[in-house]
Parts: sequence; structure tokens; C-alpha cells
Amino acid sequence: MKSDIKDKKLAPRGELKVEWASQSMPVLNLIKERFEVEKPLKGIRIGACLHVTTETAVLVRTLAAGGAQVSVCASNPLSTQDEVAAFMAGRLKIPTFAIKGEGRKTYYQHINAVLDSKPVLTMDDGADLVSTIHSQRKDLIKGIIGGTEETTTGVIRLKAMAEHRALLFPIIAVNEAETKHFFDNRYGTGQSTIDGIIRATNRLLAGSTFVVCGYGWCGKGLALRASGMGANVIVTEVNPIRALEAVMDGYRVMPLTKAAQEGDIFCTVTGNTTVIGAEHFKRIKDGAIIANSGHFNVEIDIPALEKMSKRKRKLRDFLEEYTLPGGRRVYLLGEGRLVNLAVAEGHPAMVMDMSFANQALAAEYLVKNRGRLKPQVYNVPADLDREIARTKLASMGIDIDRLTPAQEKYLSAWEEGT
Amino acid sequence: MKSDIKDKKLAPRGELKVEWASQSMPVLNLIKERFEVEKPLKGIRIGACLHVTTETAVLVRTLAAGGAQVSVCASNPLSTQDEVAAFMAGRLKIPTFAIKGEGRKTYYQHINAVLDSKPVLTMDDGADLVSTIHSQRKDLIKGIIGGTEETTTGVIRLKAMAEHRALLFPIIAVNEAETKHFFDNRYGTGQSTIDGIIRATNRLLAGSTFVVCGYGWCGKGLALRASGMGANVIVTEVNPIRALEAVMDGYRVMPLTKAAQEGDIFCTVTGNTTVIGAEHFKRIKDGAIIANSGHFNVEIDIPALEKMSKRKRKLRDFLEEYTLPGGRRVYLLGEGRLVNLAVAEGHPAMVMDMSFANQALAAEYLVKNRGRLKPQVYNVPADLDREIARTKLASMGIDIDRLTPAQEKYLSAWEEGT
Amino acid sequence: MKSDIKDKKLAPRGELKVEWASQSMPVLNLIKERFEVEKPLKGIRIGACLHVTTETAVLVRTLAAGGAQVSVCASNPLSTQDEVAAFMAGRLKIPTFAIKGEGRKTYYQHINAVLDSKPVLTMDDGADLVSTIHSQRKDLIKGIIGGTEETTTGVIRLKAMAEHRALLFPIIAVNEAETKHFFDNRYGTGQSTIDGIIRATNRLLAGSTFVVCGYGWCGKGLALRASGMGANVIVTEVNPIRALEAVMDGYRVMPLTKAAQEGDIFCTVTGNTTVIGAEHFKRIKDGAIIANSGHFNVEIDIPALEKMSKRKRKLRDFLEEYTLPGGRRVYLLGEGRLVNLAVAEGHPAMVMDMSFANQALAAEYLVKNRGRLKPQVYNVPADLDREIARTKLASMGIDIDRLTPAQEKYLSAWEEGT
Amino acid sequence: MKSDIKDKKLAPRGELKVEWASQSMPVLNLIKERFEVEKPLKGIRIGACLHVTTETAVLVRTLAAGGAQVSVCASNPLSTQDEVAAFMAGRLKIPTFAIKGEGRKTYYQHINAVLDSKPVLTMDDGADLVSTIHSQRKDLIKGIIGGTEETTTGVIRLKAMAEHRALLFPIIAVNEAETKHFFDNRYGTGQSTIDGIIRATNRLLAGSTFVVCGYGWCGKGLALRASGMGANVIVTEVNPIRALEAVMDGYRVMPLTKAAQEGDIFCTVTGNTTVIGAEHFKRIKDGAIIANSGHFNVEIDIPALEKMSKRKRKLRDFLEEYTLPGGRRVYLLGEGRLVNLAVAEGHPAMVMDMSFANQALAAEYLVKNRGRLKPQVYNVPADLDREIARTKLASMGIDIDRLTPAQEKYLSAWEEGT
Repeated sequence: MKSDIKDKKLAPRGELKVEWASQSMPVLNLIKERFEVEKPLKGIRIGACLHVTTETAVLVRTLAAGGAQVSVCASNPLSTQDEVAAFMAGRLKIPTFAIKGEGRKTYYQHINAVLDSKPVLTMDDGADLVSTIHSQRKDLIKGIIGGTEETTTGVIRLKAMAEHRALLFPIIAVNEAETKHFFDNRYGTGQSTIDGIIRATNRLLAGSTFVVCGYGWCGKGLALRASGMGANVIVTEVNPIRALEAVMDGYRVMPLTKAAQEGDIFCTVTGNTTVIGAEHFKRIKDGAIIANSGHFNVEIDIPALEKMSKRKRKLRDFLEEYTLPGGRRVYLLGEGRLVNLAVAEGHPAMVMDMSFANQALAAEYLVKNRGRLKPQVYNVPADLDREIARTKLASMGIDIDRLTPAQEKYLSAWEEGT
Repeated sequence: MKSDIKDKKLAPRGELKVEWASQSMPVLNLIKERFEVEKPLKGIRIGACLHVTTETAVLVRTLAAGGAQVSVCASNPLSTQDEVAAFMAGRLKIPTFAIKGEGRKTYYQHINAVLDSKPVLTMDDGADLVSTIHSQRKDLIKGIIGGTEETTTGVIRLKAMAEHRALLFPIIAVNEAETKHFFDNRYGTGQSTIDGIIRATNRLLAGSTFVVCGYGWCGKGLALRASGMGANVIVTEVNPIRALEAVMDGYRVMPLTKAAQEGDIFCTVTGNTTVIGAEHFKRIKDGAIIANSGHFNVEIDIPALEKMSKRKRKLRDFLEEYTLPGGRRVYLLGEGRLVNLAVAEGHPAMVMDMSFANQALAAEYLVKNRGRLKPQVYNVPADLDREIARTKLASMGIDIDRLTPAQEKYLSAWEEGT
Repeated sequence: MKSDIKDKKLAPRGELKVEWASQSMPVLNLIKERFEVEKPLKGIRIGACLHVTTETAVLVRTLAAGGAQVSVCASNPLSTQDEVAAFMAGRLKIPTFAIKGEGRKTYYQHINAVLDSKPVLTMDDGADLVSTIHSQRKDLIKGIIGGTEETTTGVIRLKAMAEHRALLFPIIAVNEAETKHFFDNRYGTGQSTIDGIIRATNRLLAGSTFVVCGYGWCGKGLALRASGMGANVIVTEVNPIRALEAVMDGYRVMPLTKAAQEGDIFCTVTGNTTVIGAEHFKRIKDGAIIANSGHFNVEIDIPALEKMSKRKRKLRDFLEEYTLPGGRRVYLLGEGRLVNLAVAEGHPAMVMDMSFANQALAAEYLVKNRGRLKPQVYNVPADLDREIARTKLASMGIDIDRLTPAQEKYLSAWEEGT
Repeated sequence: MKSDIKDKKLAPRGELKVEWASQSMPVLNLIKERFEVEKPLKGIRIGACLHVTTETAVLVRTLAAGGAQVSVCASNPLSTQDEVAAFMAGRLKIPTFAIKGEGRKTYYQHINAVLDSKPVLTMDDGADLVSTIHSQRKDLIKGIIGGTEETTTGVIRLKAMAEHRALLFPIIAVNEAETKHFFDNRYGTGQSTIDGIIRATNRLLAGSTFVVCGYGWCGKGLALRASGMGANVIVTEVNPIRALEAVMDGYRVMPLTKAAQEGDIFCTVTGNTTVIGAEHFKRIKDGAIIANSGHFNVEIDIPALEKMSKRKRKLRDFLEEYTLPGGRRVYLLGEGRLVNLAVAEGHPAMVMDMSFANQALAAEYLVKNRGRLKPQVYNVPADLDREIARTKLASMGIDIDRLTPAQEKYLSAWEEGT
């Protein structure tokens, strides 16, 4: 089996970058050491559809150390780091199908190339493997032990499948682990989205009005960082409890049609579709910048924008100017794809360490519990989750308190009162 | 049935303060308007053990408007606002048993006075009614429909009871409502604890080292506000995931024996016992200030402090100086009772509005579902929770987006991919 | 010479509170130790018009230790702590003229009582001593060595006098010391104003819209703290550079007529007059809270409010409700006097330590330089300022770096380039 | 006269980027419109040694519009944007001498190429033009009207020259304008330094310990942004007042030898030399990242680091690993040159708009006042400064209050008291 990557010669550069990332991934590296001894994934074929970044290389190396045969394709056409793909294909000898900027057709060819390896475990970031299997490659299903899913968007899709009884093998929702979504979604998306927006624009955030669409964990992280950079943040939401949280966190909350008239920068992180659309483009200020950091590029209605625009041109890398009737200009970043991966380098290794430790342990768990799980969406077991946090703290040299026996007793007692 | 309060003549003053609080409680007032028409609690005897504050008066008035016969005692010896007790007893004609500074014996007499009214619904803040009933007043159990519980500490106790199969009637954990613990615990405890500490000490928080013991919702809120006042915050925790969250939020995390040597101000919000004890007092700096904002006054080991000290004297209201061997002085606030209620006025009405809206709706729900619930700890139904948030936003004049049909469809679909 | 205070019997209570404050005033206490030995103020009569608080007692005790004969009156009718006045008069034997809530007439009688002591040094907080001397007690001028001024408002007045050549003796503007206005105005006013507003209202700041009028050092501190408590902050300014700073700090900036329609809480800190007036009351929302933390109670146009209102009543201590035509209610805190002193306890001792160290050293400097200074407004000499900071850091156990000889040389050289 | 740039063909790309930057520079563009009409710099030869960035192109275009003949060289070997140099040389027809990565020798050749144009106005960013003129090109001095200086470091050098009476023509310290250092140094350096560090490392700042060396305006901005990204910030300082400010702002302050053992990331912004040196490298943790954002690359003692290291290799662009005895690894960013320009794109156009508006107006002022200024370092006149702020606010659509006649009178009066 061969790979499809941009340029083999980028491998040495990729290797150094992976080494750098690996330094911030002590938890995954400890798992790798154990996997090398125990080989819990021996002979297991894993098909992985993930963002092909330095951190993913560290995960793939860990799975391979555990005995797995892994093949990898990109989970987004713009998020691949070509030097990492070259390193994985060339040095790690992992079949890798990922080229930054690949078209939709190539994207699905790559997914199918991975599926051709007849994986018994799937590892998804956005559920494209699972949905392709369920719609076009049903023959694979009977051989599959189960799969894992990395992201909110994917979990939403998979839970919808489970609810429609369309899901045919068990999935562990890595995203639901506290050591995943508390950290990756909040601190990872927060920083990397800001990073992507600044790289694409070099605009000053301080003093700008920054509209965050969606106040889930990603939105909370993004609002926190935008505010930490000095922006005045407006939040839009459809969930009243989250909306109220945003108000109490000091942000303004309003419908997007109103926010459209105030914002300088907009970023969607909802997991939903058509969040910014024609009715917003009609109201938006001249010079507004629009980005998406949700998984799919459907959050901004780009077809509507294209249709409304009289002119389109590229001013900087990842920065396209659309001129609307009347002369207002709107700037779209990274073609509306997740700006933190398309323009910047995605989540820092430090958070991916925990997310991918969950992936590796979830894969081991699926294999260990083969045949015992139903075709449902499962959470990562709480003890794995907690153990990852404990290991992470230790790797940072941070010690914490432990419950005394008296305290444990107190927590399980109910007699003592005021 | 009569009341036991400090001074009837305080009623007019209490009435004005309740009017002031009521202005910030639009959700509860809307429920009151409906209750006046529908009388869903008609003839229901409610025994309530709550902090006797202005907001509680608004709740009690709401329950009474729904047809209930309410009697009230204090859920903490130091948290009663005597003018409010006078107003409730005098103007609202609610049997009220609460005197600020009452001793332990009086405290339990007051609980029993409420139980003498043979309540069929209990309303607890710390589970003292429920645990007294289960240990000393078992005769009441057969008549009881169920109860509600306001606080984390109480929920911990009640879940322990349920796990030991000791709980004999259903409880709705109001604390678990998102419109309760996201807001009351975080924003309410955060502000009111800072308020209590400043009132007791008039110390500058900026530039101080502030140690928060516990990083649950209350601890998160407190750390955020201490930091917002310019303090350098240290967090101590026993849960590794929460500890890691605190690290990522920019705080230092370390064992309390180490933090003891750095802190200027310490505050416990754990729901546990003996968090600050002898081994910490041994290490603590001269001049350190210690407070508790957890429900019970067991978080600081005051007996140990008393035993170690050579001298004790009161410098200001709610501020006692303990002189340790070697001359180090430790300052204890409000006798280690919840500093936000003992020294300040507790949570602002704005957050209690939602907490108590949950209380009122939970009482109605218990009555409606009489006989259908098991002796377990239930959450507040999600639709009540969400409706409270929606009403609150509307009362603040804040409009939010709604899902379009296309978005609802997208969220329940799984076919569309990258 | 005798005192005019509320109640002598409050002295023991005052003494304990002064002891508590003194613990946070290590710099002033070190100066006191030196003064006791060197007696630099021997025989100097000092007239002090200051807020009569615990910290002022520590200052007065320091001046007396240096040999001065001090007499004191209040610099604001509402800011006196009666127990401290009792302590100063009774235990320190300092002639003290200050009663909390004294009327305008008594206020000026008290000023004149101090002037009757024929002070040769004046110590002002708002320039009332100096302006009374220049307008009504000109006979005193020839004996006066000079004076000091504590606050922004006073410095504005005195510089206006100097510009009109009306100032007849030298003044040291303690307010201009960096160890004063960087700390006292910013961190002191920030915290204590928030403290005053919360004590008066018990309102939740999180989620509220908080309008700060004026973005000088006090306004910056207040906006920072309001934001740190979770409020959404709007700033109003007349100075374009400060307005731009506020924008870059993430706040919204707009004219007050517009902010009037959005704000839940308003606080003036401008040092100017009629900042909130009739045109704003006309637009303000029902339930809005208005406070002032500037020196004089002219920042809010209370006569206009009184005139416009149909009803006025007191709901809580320091909280008065004005009902405007149409039924909108406006709540005025502490009669529009500086809310941090009228409702709370003023700046914490920790910042007053530096402000009053500047006062004590400025008094010493005036005496040492008697006859050498012109009738102008002088800054505190920079070396005194820096020495205070150095001593403060040492008292906090904080060590800092020192320039190496090579670094000192580098800073004074210009040859070395890129 | 010809240029020395990397590649003429980059000009179109440079032009688009300059157009993008120009959109955020409304103040400078308004000045350009006026200059085109008034031609205040007609025939004036300007030699400019500035960072060759998109914003500089907008400035140069403005000066040329005013009639000046400008020639430009880089003020730092690593900060040049080659496509902008190509645009300036090719489209604007400005003699431009700047190549990213040029060596020390080329750097000084470029300075001399600019000086060969016999400038009568100098425009410096770091004082290299002025110091070269004073040391090697003294013949030019008699023809020179004066110069401007952009940065703190340059102002320190020039004031040292003036103090030694070595400065031979007047300089306007653009850096001292409030619309410059309040904004550019604080918000510009803050954001762009964080940007540079993240681009070079992709490390998560949240949860890291970030050491800021120097707490001037740049250091304040950097600490604020590092903290805003979730880092735990330690500040080191030599000035006790600034150190105390840092403490009150909630940061830890300690000597760098101690901070060296705690920090994950270090950044110098002092304007001084050898701030991080051998004694710190000895103590630093394995994996520590070191950067400089001060003007010159002398803040980190790189020769000492080179000498101590056993191995050096490049892991990523702008990221070099030094392995110390014992195996500890230290990562140096951008060769210790100002990380915001060497790794990222420098200050956003939005702040450079004001800095360069000051440059343009200072140039006009020097020409207008030719012969009337002494060989000293002057501040930008306050009315220019304020006018720039007013124009900037207007360009952002922000309106502010104006003093009423009654308020102006109040501020200049002194009679009215309490």
C-alpha cells in the first residue's frame, strides 16, 4: 500500500517539527512506552481520518508502537501539514493520504484509500469515515470492532445516527472526555483561532469588536482569548442558558442580525450550518473580517456571499476580499475552513497530548471490550479520563492534595449537619 | 403557630429591603403572578430551612401566593437578616424561626419548630431538615411528598443517603439545575465572598496572594473574582481534572501545605471537612486571613486553631485574631461560617431569582407528580431549566437567535460531510 | 484646645481598628520609628483636613512622633469614622473635629477650629484648608511654611490658583507622586468604589452594564475592577487620548447621553462638575443606580434630580430612590458623596501607607526647605517617591533586580548600535 | 540612485499587502490628502532608517505626497518584508536598501547608502542613522534640519547623547507622544510579541509560566496579553515603582535568577543589555523558550549562550535549540532579534497609523520650525498628539463628550469647595 502526499523530500523538516511537538506530549509518550511493551493493538488495522499535523504523527507513532497497522487520511482539505505527511509516509512507513489544498474529489479518494485497508477500528475527526462506511462501504461494517470520534461536530452527527438507529458499530466519543473538551476545545481552539486570525490579517484585536457565534466550549475559549487580547466581545447563541452565561461573563449578547452591524471580526464556532448568511452580509460593516473555526465549512454561507458579490480578489494568503453591491468589502479567511488549522497550525501539542491520549486509550479499550459494546455512542470511561489528568499534572511537575480518610468518610456520610 | 425572631419592630425596614431585592427578581415575580391565578400549591404545607434573607422572603411570598402554608427556619446560625425575619413573621404572616447569632441549641429548636408544622414538602439548604427527619422525626416521613435541596453540600449528603438506601422520599436537587449552579455558585458566590472578605477586613486584594481551596463552580467563581480584583491566585484541589483546569486558567496549583506558606488570604469552598487544619496553621504566614464560603463551618478546623493559640481577641466585627506560638497571628473571619452570608448579604437577588425560580417550579413539579417519584435525588427537568433562562434574558431585554428549520434539520442529520 | 467628635466611648473600638490598619502600613511605621529619634517636625503646628479614617490616625500618630502638634478636621461630611475620631481625640490627644454626617455649617466650623490652631503646615485633601485660608483667613498666610495636597481634585484647584497667581505659599502635590496616584487612585479607588456600591445595593455586577465617567487613574482602576467583577463596562471621557486608551482596553466609549440609555450602574470619577445632569436623567433606564467617587459631590447634578423627581424615599442605608415623571426610578448612593468613603471604608491601609508616607516625607521636606520654595505647586521629589516604593516592596518580602555596572553604562552610552 | 532589495518581482504581492495595511491607517491617509495639496515637505530630502513593513510603505508614500525625496534602509536586519521593499522600490520609486536576513556589513552599507542621499531630515528607529552621522558622517551635520526617533531604545540613546552634549541637531522623540507609546508600545508590542512567539513555537500559553523582563509600556502590554492568553506571568524589574505596579496588577515579581527556575517562556523588553545571561542559563529549566522584543539583540547574552552550549540546531523556522551541559535544552527565537518583527509582522497597521502620523507631523513641524530648535530631544507638541487621537476616534466612528463651558470654568476655578 502506498501513500499520496505532496513531496517526500519534506520528511526531514517534518521530523524536526514532530520532535518539537513530541516534547509537549509527555502523556502520549508514556502511553507509547507502555504500548511498546504490552502491544495491546497487535495486528489491529486502524483507519484514521484526522488533521495531519505534528501531533497526529505522535499519535500514529504511539498506535504503531502498540502493534497497530495504521493508515491515515486528512479530515480536512486545508489542514494538512505537508512536511508531516511526508514524515509519516517516509520515516514512520504509515500509508498516508493527505495533501494541503486537495480538492473535494481527492479528499474522498483519500478517505476511500484508507477504507481500502479494511480497518477494524476507525478514528474520526468529523465522522467522515463512519458516514462514508455507513453510506458507501457497508461491506466493511461486519469486520469493525468500533471507532472513536474526536470532535463536537462529529459527536453531534454520530448521536443523530444512533438516535435514528443508523449507527451500526460502537463509537467512543473522545470529545466528551473532560480532559478533551475542557482543554482542547476551550484552550486549544481559543488560542489557535486567534493565531489563525492574526496570521491571516495582522489586525490589532485590541479595540476591535469581535463577534463570537456560539458559546459552547470552543466559543467560551475563543471569547476569553479575544477578550484577553483587548477586543470588545459580542456573543450570539441559540441556547438561552449559554446566552445567559455569556452575559454574566461580561459580554454583550444579541441576535446576529444586530451584531452584524457592530462587528469588526466575526468567527463561527457552532457546529451548525448557515450561521452567517445573506441577511447578515446585507448588514455587515465595510471592512468586516469573517472566519470559521467550527469543523465544517458550512457555518458561513459562502455560496450566498459569492452570489451577492460583484468582485472577489485575494489580498494576502488566506485573505479574500468580496466586494458587495454599494462597495462594502467583506474579508473571508481561509475559504471559511477552520481557521486555526487552515491558516495556523491547529491546537498546540500540549492540549493534543490529552486529546490523543484519550484516542490511544479508547482504541485499547475498544479492543479489550470487543464484542461487549453496543452500536451506541459511549463516553470515555471516567477513570481513564482522570488518569490522563493526573499524568499530565505530574509531567508538569505539579503536585495536588489528596483526600484524607476522614474527608472521604465525610463525603460519603450524611449525618453531620450545621 | 408563632414565630421566634429578634425584634418585630424591624419589619418596616425589612419590607423596604425586600422590595429592593424583589426588583431584581423578575422571573420569580412572574411565577408569583401565575401562582396567584393557578394556586398549584393549594393547601400544601411547606417546611423551609433556608438562609433568611431578602431573596428568601420573595420566594416565600411566591409559595404562599401559590396557596402553600409555609414555615421557615434558618439554615445557618449566622446568616439570618433579622429585619427580614421580622418582615416575614409580621407582614407576610409566615411562621419564622431565625435569629442572627442563635446558638446550636436554638438552631435545632428552630428546625424542630418547622417540623412541628408537619410539612409535606421540605425545602432545604444543606439538608438539615431531611437529615433531622430521617434521624429524629421519622413519623413525618409517611406524609411527605418530597423535598428540594438548594446547595452542593446538601446534594452531596443526599446522594450519600440515596446510595446507602437511607433516603426515604424523593428530592429534587435544585443545585443541579444549570440556571442554579452555573450562576448562583459561580457568579453569586464569587461576588458575595469577595464582598464578605472586604467588609470584614478592608484589605486590598490587589497585590495579595489569594488561596482558593476547591475549584468546583464556587471555587471557579471565587478565583475569577479574586483575580479580577488584582490578587495573585493559588488554587488547591483534590480532583486532577479540576486542578488542570485551574492551571490552564492561569493560576498556580499546589498542595495546601505549600500554599500555606505563600498565601495572604485563604478561602475554602470545597463542601468537605478539615480542609485547613493544624498542619497548615503551623506553616501559615504572620497576618494571614482565613475564611470559609462552603456551606458548613467544618472546612476550617477551628477546634485545632483554638487549641494551638495562646491568645484570641476580636479586632473588628467578624474578625478574630488568633496568636500562635512564636507570635504569628491568624485572622479568622465570621467564625469560619460562610463568609458571604455571615459578613455580607449573601448572593445578590439577581442570581437568587433563578435559584428560587427553580425552587418554586420544583415544588410545583413535586406536587404535580405526587406518588410518581422514587426516593431518589432527581435533577430539575431540563425544560424548566431552559425556560427560566429564557425568561431571565427577556427580563433583561436581551434577545437571542433561534434555530432555523434548516439548522434543526442539520443538527439531526448525519449524511452531510466535509 | 478641645475636640468635637460624636462619642468618646467609641475610642477603644477605634483603637483596635487602627491597630488592624497599622498592620498594613509598614512604610509609615518605619518613618515613625525614624521620626521618634530625629524629631524633624519638632514644634511644627500642622493643620490637617483629611478623611478621618483608621489610616489617617496612623499618619497623625507618625507626625506627632516627629514632634508636630497636629489638629485634624474632616475633609468630607460623610467620610468620618466616628470611632477613629474618638480614638484620635481620646488616646492620641489630637484635637479632632469630625462627626460623620455633619452638616455644611459644622463642616466649616470644624475647618475653622483647625485654623484657629494657627498651623504653619497645612495638609489638605481637596484643598478646603488652603482655599479657606486664602479667602477668609488671610492673616494666617504669613506664618505658613507650606502645605500638602492629597487628591487630584485638590491639585486641579491649586494649580488653577497658582496659574491665577492667587496661591500664596508652596504646596507639595502628594497626589502627583507615582507611589500615590499609580496606587491609591487606581487600586485603592478601584476596590473601594466597588465595595461601596456593593454594600449600598447588594446588586450583582456580573452581567450588568457599568458606566464609568472619566478615564483618569481613578477611572482606569474602577473600570478594571468593574470588569473584573464581570460587568460590561462603558467609558465616557472628554480627553481623546484617554478615550482611545479606553477603547484599546476593550471598553465601549460613547457620549454619556447615549450611555445613559444602556447603563445599569453609573459612577463618576472626573474631578469635574455636573457630569451627570438633567439631560441624562431624562434618558436613563428605570432602576438605574448612580454613584460618585470623585472628591466633591458636584459630579452628579443632585439639585436637578431633586427638581425633576416626583417622589423620594430611602430603601436601604445610603440608597435613595427618586421617582421621575413617567415612573422611572433612579437610585442615588450616599447622597452623591464619594461612595468609597461614605458607604465603605475608603482606600485600604495598604495603599494609604504609601500615600501617607508621601505626606509625612513631604511635611519633613517642607520644613527642611523652609524659605527656599516659591508659592507654587511642587511634585514630591523623585528620590523620596522611589524610596517609598523600595521600602514597600521590602515590607512585602519582594526582592527585585538591580542594574549591573555594565547596564548602567549601556543606558548612558549611545555609540553601540544594531 | 538605485535600490538594493531581494527581488523586484515581489512588488505586486507587496502592493496588495500595503493596500490591506493602508485600510487600517485612516489618520495617516488623511494627512496624505492634506500633504498632496499643501506640499509642506517640498524638496526636503529625508533619510529613513525604519523597519521596512507595509505600514512604513504607507508612511513613505505620505511623505512623498508632501513633496519629500525619501530614501529608506532597514532598521533591523531581520525585520524587512521583502515584498514591501520591492513595492517601495518598484512602484513608489523610493530608493530602498533592505533585504531580510542581511548581514551586519550589508546593514551598515545600507545605512550609508541612505546617508549618501544627503538627507536634511533623519527618521530613525533605534538611532542608527543619527549615531552613524555623529560618528562617521559628520560632514552631513551642517545640512541637517533635524530628525525624528521612533522607539524607546533610540530615545534613551539620544538623551544620553544630548546629556553628553554630543547631539548636534534637534530630534523629535516620536516615541514620547502619548498616541505613540500608550498605543504602539503597549497594544502593538503586546499583540505582535505574542504573535511572534506562537508562530515560532506553536506552544500553548495557557498554563505556562511566562516571564516578562521589564515593566515599561512594552512590558505592561506584553504581560497583559500573556495573561490574557492564560499564562501565569512573572515580572522582573529594576525600577521599584514599576515593580510595585506589577505586583498590584496581580503578577509575581522576583529577581530573574529566581524566575529563571520557574519560567517556561521568557521575553525581554527592557531597552537594556545582557538582561538574560550566563547566570540565568545556568538555572533555567529544560525546554525553556527565550525571546527578545526590545529593539536591539543585546538583551539576551547570545555569545554567552553559544559558549556554554554543546550543541546547536534548528528545529523550526526561527527556533534554535541550544543544548547545555547536563542536557538541558534552551530554545532561542529569531536569533534574539525583536521577535514581533523577526518572526511575525510587527505592530498592526492600526497602531502604526498613530505612530506614523506623529512621524509625518513631526517632519512637517521640523521643517516649519527650521532654525528655531536647539540640538536637544523634543517631545511631539501636545496639540498634535491630541489631534491625532481625535482623528483616530472619528475614523472608528466613536464620538466622545466635550467639556461644557460650566465645566471648563469649574476646572480653572478654585473657590468652590465641599
